[in-house]
Amino acid sequence: MTSDLNLDWLISVDDHVLEPANVWVDRVAAKDRDRAPHMVVEGDMEFWVYDGKRYPSSGLSACAGKSKEEFSPEPVTYAEMRPGCYDSQARLEDMDRAGILASLCFPTITRFCGQLFAEASDREFGLVCLKAYNDWMIEEWCGSAPGRYIPLILIPIWDPKLAAKEMERCSDKGANAFAFSENPAPLGLPTIHDKNRYWDPVMSTASELQMVASMHVGSSSQVPQIAPDSPFMANLAWGAIRTSGAMLSWLFSGMFTRFPGLKIALSEGEIGWIPYFLERAEQVLDKQRYWVQRGVQFGEHATTDVDLSTLNVRELFRNHVFGCFIDDHHGIASIDEIGEDNIMCETDYPHSDSTWPNCITAVKKQISHLPAETQYKILRGNAEKLYRFTPAEPPALTGA
Amino acid sequence: MTSDLNLDWLISVDDHVLEPANVWVDRVAAKDRDRAPHMVVEGDMEFWVYDGKRYPSSGLSACAGKSKEEFSPEPVTYAEMRPGCYDSQARLEDMDRAGILASLCFPTITRFCGQLFAEASDREFGLVCLKAYNDWMIEEWCGSAPGRYIPLILIPIWDPKLAAKEMERCSDKGANAFAFSENPAPLGLPTIHDKNRYWDPVMSTASELQMVASMHVGSSSQVPQIAPDSPFMANLAWGAIRTSGAMLSWLFSGMFTRFPGLKIALSEGEIGWIPYFLERAEQVLDKQRYWVQRGVQFGEHATTDVDLSTLNVRELFRNHVFGCFIDDHHGIASIDEIGEDNIMCETDYPHSDSTWPNCITAVKKQISHLPAETQYKILRGNAEKLYRFTPAEPPALTGA
Repeated sequence: MTSDLNLDWLISVDDHVLEPANVWVDRVAAKDRDRAPHMVVEGDMEFWVYDGKRYPSSGLSACAGKSKEEFSPEPVTYAEMRPGCYDSQARLEDMDRAGILASLCFPTITRFCGQLFAEASDREFGLVCLKAYNDWMIEEWCGSAPGRYIPLILIPIWDPKLAAKEMERCSDKGANAFAFSENPAPLGLPTIHDKNRYWDPVMSTASELQMVASMHVGSSSQVPQIAPDSPFMANLAWGAIRTSGAMLSWLFSGMFTRFPGLKIALSEGEIGWIPYFLERAEQVLDKQRYWVQRGVQFGEHATTDVDLSTLNVRELFRNHVFGCFIDDHHGIASIDEIGEDNIMCETDYPHSDSTWPNCITAVKKQISHLPAETQYKILRGNAEKLYRFTPAEPPALTGA
Repeated sequence: MTSDLNLDWLISVDDHVLEPANVWVDRVAAKDRDRAPHMVVEGDMEFWVYDGKRYPSSGLSACAGKSKEEFSPEPVTYAEMRPGCYDSQARLEDMDRAGILASLCFPTITRFCGQLFAEASDREFGLVCLKAYNDWMIEEWCGSAPGRYIPLILIPIWDPKLAAKEMERCSDKGANAFAFSENPAPLGLPTIHDKNRYWDPVMSTASELQMVASMHVGSSSQVPQIAPDSPFMANLAWGAIRTSGAMLSWLFSGMFTRFPGLKIALSEGEIGWIPYFLERAEQVLDKQRYWVQRGVQFGEHATTDVDLSTLNVRELFRNHVFGCFIDDHHGIASIDEIGEDNIMCETDYPHSDSTWPNCITAVKKQISHLPAETQYKILRGNAEKLYRFTPAEPPALTGA
């Protein structure tokens, strides 16, 4: 019944938590509190400290409540942030105000896929800290408000077997999503094309446990630069090339054939670029696959171990890839090419791209011309299905 | 009068010539014939030789008449190629057959913007050879069939003042387009953002003489690679990131404000990615320009010397940038976002992406739902206007 669909709330599959100061110090052994990520205040400045390095918080990570004229990457303290940045109860108030029924949050200080712990001098202790984050995310952040937060866990990307174990542990605790890198190569790790199949333990576990690999744009620790002196604004606008590269890598990797239960979410990747790159992928496959499949040598070209003659990139996309958008009119205008089952919305709270506090209004403005069933899928239905998540009943509307 | 519009012919703004053996040996001094690019046959093999290096011709550069099952990058000799690859009269027959009224051809052995001569050990002689190419292109290739070929000249990219002189010389001979690099940085040259304004002599001349800067995809001598071992097909499908980077660079460069007559053509860049990146450019400008304009330091971010508060990227695009497509259904479906005055068609003869011999059919299949006036603009009207080119009367139709 169309008329019964509640289109007043959305599920955001990409928000961010600035970890509260207690995440690690509360969960590691007392003797390790100073080794775990912990907050240090010095005069006006405030840093996270871990493994001998200092990490101030960027103002661009905590823009909620600020006007764009005030946005700045300059360091901010937690006291200067809106409490919703780091406090799950304060966040709920901000979510209610903006029509956000549920939210999946990426970490901040650990970086998008836990790079902080992969780079640590002591990875054994890094794993302790990573598990502490996961426990905190599941038990405290999400546990504080059942049905309002979708847990996203980190994995030890430096050890896929340990990663699989951690996925199993967290799956048992209710987690259905893990953070993965859009491109592990710049992190110094084997890629998904690795001949030794480095990632197989992770991907087979993800496939079996139906855990979604969520790849946030920037999770390769790369900021694309068109040229050494290209304008910052141009580089910033170019950012989705990382996600388009990730999508194409996965479609041609053979991973989805080997692990049929695998699903990937292109978090904050936007969607407007998808139709072109899918069409182009079909074209190169149609025209170039014969000589590539024959193994003709061509520069540094590596021959493929995927059977290109049966590869259907559009079908693979439909069955395995989920695009995520904040504000993307062109993407929504292209919904028939992307597929209404493959699109989820985001609010990016509290980052500078966020639409908060006008989140539900901003999404509905983009999709209101679509059938109610389609709107529902984009607003929450696709996310509920992909992340196997049952949200709480919507609270009474509080405005916005 | 709509009914009077001839929609049976197109102008292709991106084709390729495999230079015939005589281009340079006929035009340089007798003593220099062995120093200029010249053809050498050894057994079954055939090479261009220049500056001590050998350059065989790639089969992927001469696919016309071959089935996709036969495509291969393996070396081919001119005798194995369809004569239209290198003979302007044979090319005309192929053009007539495919509904190509006129064609702008990029060079092959010199590479897309004359990199061969920029890399030469003797640039003075490189300039002699470059001028010989331009004379040959204008007088022989284009001169052999008035109204059927649009001349595209090369410039000495290593010396902008000499380049400006060569542009003036060729403009006098009727050339209205020059090849430029989508990204000069990988060529070891200053970019269009250079603080010392390296390219000003070229751009001011282009603006004054109304010479179009035609940037072929790949004219940065780069093949994008998602990761060191990413599948060749994925990298190939990712190719337009070069053109999208070029477009964003130019829009944020300030060039179009400083040189209002400048026009750039994104040759073989395809167009389906344009709407997303334009929309994204507007978003980052809207949200991030305040702190960037204030000059806040951020990593390696260089402050801008462009006034971001008045920058209108969509208007700059409309007035200065021309997208070129071969086969791009998504791009045409997005025509309202790109603009019907900013799209030109290509056939890419004789490369592997070419639609030959079904060129006019292939384009019309993509645009036939559009108003006749719009179809005419895409087929030839926009190219005639941009390149200030009056084509010959269409020959009698010969089939295809």
